[in-house]
Amino acid sequence: MDNYKREDLLSLLPYKPAKEKEVIRLHANESPYDLPEDLKEAIFERVRKENFNFYYDPSCDELKEALSSYLGVEPEKIFVGSGADEIIYDIALAYAGPGREVIIPVPSFSSYEIFSAVSGAKVIRVPLLLDEGPEGCIWKLDLPKIKSHFKKDEPQVMFLCNPNNPTGDYFNDSDIFELLEDFNGIVAVDEAYFEFGGKTLINMISQFPNLVIIRTFSKVFSLAGLRIGYAVAEENIIEEFYKVKPPYNVSLFSQIAAVEVLKRMDWVEDVKEKIIRAREDLKAKLKKLPGVTVYPSSTNFLLCKFDMPRDVVHQKLLEKGILVRKPEGKEVENMLRISVGTAEQNELLVKAFEDILK
Amino acid sequence: MDNYKREDLLSLLPYKPAKEKEVIRLHANESPYDLPEDLKEAIFERVRKENFNFYYDPSCDELKEALSSYLGVEPEKIFVGSGADEIIYDIALAYAGPGREVIIPVPSFSSYEIFSAVSGAKVIRVPLLLDEGPEGCIWKLDLPKIKSHFKKDEPQVMFLCNPNNPTGDYFNDSDIFELLEDFNGIVAVDEAYFEFGGKTLINMISQFPNLVIIRTFSKVFSLAGLRIGYAVAEENIIEEFYKVKPPYNVSLFSQIAAVEVLKRMDWVEDVKEKIIRAREDLKAKLKKLPGVTVYPSSTNFLLCKFDMPRDVVHQKLLEKGILVRKPEGKEVENMLRISVGTAEQNELLVKAFEDILK
Repeated sequence: MDNYKREDLLSLLPYKPAKEKEVIRLHANESPYDLPEDLKEAIFERVRKENFNFYYDPSCDELKEALSSYLGVEPEKIFVGSGADEIIYDIALAYAGPGREVIIPVPSFSSYEIFSAVSGAKVIRVPLLLDEGPEGCIWKLDLPKIKSHFKKDEPQVMFLCNPNNPTGDYFNDSDIFELLEDFNGIVAVDEAYFEFGGKTLINMISQFPNLVIIRTFSKVFSLAGLRIGYAVAEENIIEEFYKVKPPYNVSLFSQIAAVEVLKRMDWVEDVKEKIIRAREDLKAKLKKLPGVTVYPSSTNFLLCKFDMPRDVVHQKLLEKGILVRKPEGKEVENMLRISVGTAEQNELLVKAFEDILK
Repeated sequence: MDNYKREDLLSLLPYKPAKEKEVIRLHANESPYDLPEDLKEAIFERVRKENFNFYYDPSCDELKEALSSYLGVEPEKIFVGSGADEIIYDIALAYAGPGREVIIPVPSFSSYEIFSAVSGAKVIRVPLLLDEGPEGCIWKLDLPKIKSHFKKDEPQVMFLCNPNNPTGDYFNDSDIFELLEDFNGIVAVDEAYFEFGGKTLINMISQFPNLVIIRTFSKVFSLAGLRIGYAVAEENIIEEFYKVKPPYNVSLFSQIAAVEVLKRMDWVEDVKEKIIRAREDLKAKLKKLPGVTVYPSSTNFLLCKFDMPRDVVHQKLLEKGILVRKPEGKEVENMLRISVGTAEQNELLVKAFEDILK
């Protein structure tokens, strides 16, 4: 039946993540902290009264109101989707699409490239540059190269992950501002890891009407299993997402869970503090190990380069019950991306490394 | 910012359904029955033990196993999505797309057309024919016209809703088989309303390797608020959906809820019986009213034609607290689509009609 398939998508591989139940999950940049029992019960308490048989709010009004307070942005400038994945898809479908072009600094989160290709757009990948200076390593945007494509190809969308996954840190502010200023198209800045670094461009949306911020409840809010993400942008940008989104995109349970978690910012703050502390602690310990380079991080993961082949390290960690991630791309080809776990998990990880690298 | 928008989508309208909280909802073909309390508690009981912070099963294995038993189809031939909407989107993205064509008999469910257009495909609409014979009204596929497009435009995808929304009944089996035989592309048969009519093509997927069946948990399974749909097709067709779907498309709560409802088929059967009984009763009563034509239905809704302008009927019903649907398309321009409610709701509806039409 190959004749029914889209020829332009033949090279795409089906996404089937590894299933590893009995391991320490340090491969998916999840929060290691589950919601406390009383918070789960508060969610059930509300969901119990809802009609499962009715379609639920297609515009997520209650959640937008709660996000509006959290962000200090009008609800009209917020759009909620089924995970940041849906937001990325909606951006690609509304603003990329057939005959158009998308520019993506790489390596980065793979969904930008896949969803852009599925939308029918051509993807222009511009490799990041790595400055290994005396003060550490800095992954930089290749500004001249990116800008050389503005006139040549006239791309309509750019995806920037900031701080970037899998490299871990922020790009230069001035570089991003230069791109926002010069790019005649949508600049989608993915701030999935915002809470671990604290820097955001959300307050710049009125200044840059081509800016879309992507956020998620899958990281510090600890709701990866429930699929909630959102976009923040000027209203005329948001409006386009309503054209391409599935009408009832976010389930009733997920909408209510997100609202309830936003009422417990004390707990979220605590998760954030614990993860940041654990990250700094883990970084310090990994740096002391032989044959490991640890890159700067403003996220909940650490990108590490090894003298030993990464496949060996990955495999030996797996044998010790720890799953980490081999990021794609030749810029990061002997590196592993390691999510920050609990203090106990990180302890086990460091012990495993001591054993493997000795 | 209009210059950032896709020109081919400028005519699409943002989907913002009316919010009518305090009405009898007979506009969205939902089940009027919410899950019983003990079934909700059984879902909570399982969900409570799950890690909300972890991404949940991206291939929905437990639910596919449960569906496999329900359908008598191997799990490899089942694909689960976030509502039938996602399934329709995945079909459009995997098999339609830029430079390709989709053929849709109309009027039908609007998502086929919208998602196909968003994928970049050209949509060919072929109006249904209406035979108003002595045995009642039959909406028929315009086979010669549909087939005339096979060579002219070489479409790659066809969407058939069977029984059809909003017309309400099945198309001729022989017409569908002829299309499955002759069409060199994917035939997506949407069986969202299957359980209310009982006829299915699911057992034909091995005979027709271009056949994809679409199903949903939003109707008789009474889970519209939770977004669960699925596709059934040969494995090589299913495989393509994994290329275009968002990696973690179905939330943990929705997966578990669907599994738990499938354990309570006695309850589902009871809902089905009640709705079918209520439909037949409502049909008989509406047929007795002056100036109303009721079309045959194998679904949980009735398409009705009025002598009075439908806007007037719609408005007067709304004033009495009952919301029904004005289906789009000139073939159904003075008709209303009325979902079958509970016996009590239908009683109120008939009383309202008696008042309005007298």
